[in-house]
Amino acid sequence: MVHDTIIRARYAETDQMGIIYHANYFTWFEIGRTEFFRNLGMDYKDLEYRNVLLPVIDVGCKYITSAKYDDEIIIRTKLSKLKGVKLKYEYEIIRKEDNKLLAEGYTLHAFVDKDLKPVNFRKKYKDVWDLLSKNLE
Amino acid sequence: MVHDTIIRARYAETDQMGIIYHANYFTWFEIGRTEFFRNLGMDYKDLEYRNVLLPVIDVGCKYITSAKYDDEIIIRTKLSKLKGVKLKYEYEIIRKEDNKLLAEGYTLHAFVDKDLKPVNFRKKYKDVWDLLSKNLE
Amino acid sequence: MVHDTIIRARYAETDQMGIIYHANYFTWFEIGRTEFFRNLGMDYKDLEYRNVLLPVIDVGCKYITSAKYDDEIIIRTKLSKLKGVKLKYEYEIIRKEDNKLLAEGYTLHAFVDKDLKPVNFRKKYKDVWDLLSKNLE
Amino acid sequence: MVHDTIIRARYAETDQMGIIYHANYFTWFEIGRTEFFRNLGMDYKDLEYRNVLLPVIDVGCKYITSAKYDDEIIIRTKLSKLKGVKLKYEYEIIRKEDNKLLAEGYTLHAFVDKDLKPVNFRKKYKDVWDLLSKNLE
Repeated sequence: MVHDTIIRARYAETDQMGIIYHANYFTWFEIGRTEFFRNLGMDYKDLEYRNVLLPVIDVGCKYITSAKYDDEIIIRTKLSKLKGVKLKYEYEIIRKEDNKLLAEGYTLHAFVDKDLKPVNFRKKYKDVWDLLSKNLE
Repeated sequence: MVHDTIIRARYAETDQMGIIYHANYFTWFEIGRTEFFRNLGMDYKDLEYRNVLLPVIDVGCKYITSAKYDDEIIIRTKLSKLKGVKLKYEYEIIRKEDNKLLAEGYTLHAFVDKDLKPVNFRKKYKDVWDLLSKNLE
Repeated sequence: MVHDTIIRARYAETDQMGIIYHANYFTWFEIGRTEFFRNLGMDYKDLEYRNVLLPVIDVGCKYITSAKYDDEIIIRTKLSKLKGVKLKYEYEIIRKEDNKLLAEGYTLHAFVDKDLKPVNFRKKYKDVWDLLSKNLE
Repeated sequence: MVHDTIIRARYAETDQMGIIYHANYFTWFEIGRTEFFRNLGMDYKDLEYRNVLLPVIDVGCKYITSAKYDDEIIIRTKLSKLKGVKLKYEYEIIRKEDNKLLAEGYTLHAFVDKDLKPVNFRKKYKDVWDLLSKNLE
């Protein structure tokens, strides 16, 4: 499954170059995966209540064209890897107005508990694991 | 006691007006009070370990002249009120280069525990209370 | 006119207290006034192209109950003052789920040009001024 | 040249996992390269006045151990590539207390002018180019 979420670039997210400050794309990626989860009928919030956290362990982003204030932005999210104690998301940041690809990136996450210790997610949360597996791209 | 901390305005903190985005001054105030505490030989961090949080319940800021990227900024902090379950800080944001006042503001905080319930701080943490009392302006 | 915009609180906006970091409410206010403008058929972006900026000169916010990650948030915005070289917005931050008021605040803005000099907005942009006047509360 | 800058992790930078939100490391990298430049007797600010911007076109970061609120952080910065219209920085984020490596990353930048068009930096700013060349690692 590939999931699209639409947001608007905020004034607070601009910098003095007149474009969206690059670090904010990672916040957009985070919105993408929150909505990806919700779209599967899960809440990332609920995962945290169940004592599973998904801290980020590796990220990357390539910037092609700048996003600007008030642009409508499509955050296109897919789950591209799921194994053992890790999962990987890939994202495209697209300007809605002209469908232009502005950036693409990924985030790799570990399954850990509240003390940041690895969790065997597959075993402990088989229901969630199976649902995610079915939605890998 | 009035305590000065010096920071540099970050690129990430600018907006497309070419100035520091106004909400970031509240982050600077937060640095001011962290360092105010440290200057008294306390860690705000340790207060949290002792199960005391100081969420913000009221804030204000007047902006006089804009801070810009890379400006050296003096955050001048004083504790102006301490009573019952509340404390108030006041701040001046000063451009170091010419000693110009850029903004002034305040933050009012409640003493609460980890469940965000009010704490009778004076009673439970008499040592901290007394230290703070002596440093009111 | 009172205008409502709905957003979702982001993970990036939380802090280690487990609530939305207080400074982020000012970013939400900014979204509120951007959408207020759009709702009148104007773009704040276009104002900037026409060489009018609206830097913030005074702000305040009272926090009543904490917003949390993933909460749906109503940003209720009204224009409460418009005179000479200033305009004032007032905001309510409401949790959509139970209609609970989480915070209320205001922002006061000056009309300035790109060099941050005051602009007699009423004279230079009579069309915009008139439209805003009709939508004062 | 490898340049170290020391900062303190801010409360505003934490998230509800109780650690520094991952996107903030890119803000720290930005501080690292600002101070790297300053250490060479240049201001990144001055480059912008001279109509050279250095937008980010590719970034990556691996997270090893979490930074926490109030940690003293060493941002270790080196210039690892400089050619044509691009330059690359590499960074290590180190916890000062125990010299533990928390994260490592890179940022790749293009030399562009205010309209975001590529600039032949080597030709136009030979003085700066030569200085940077001498400080490649």
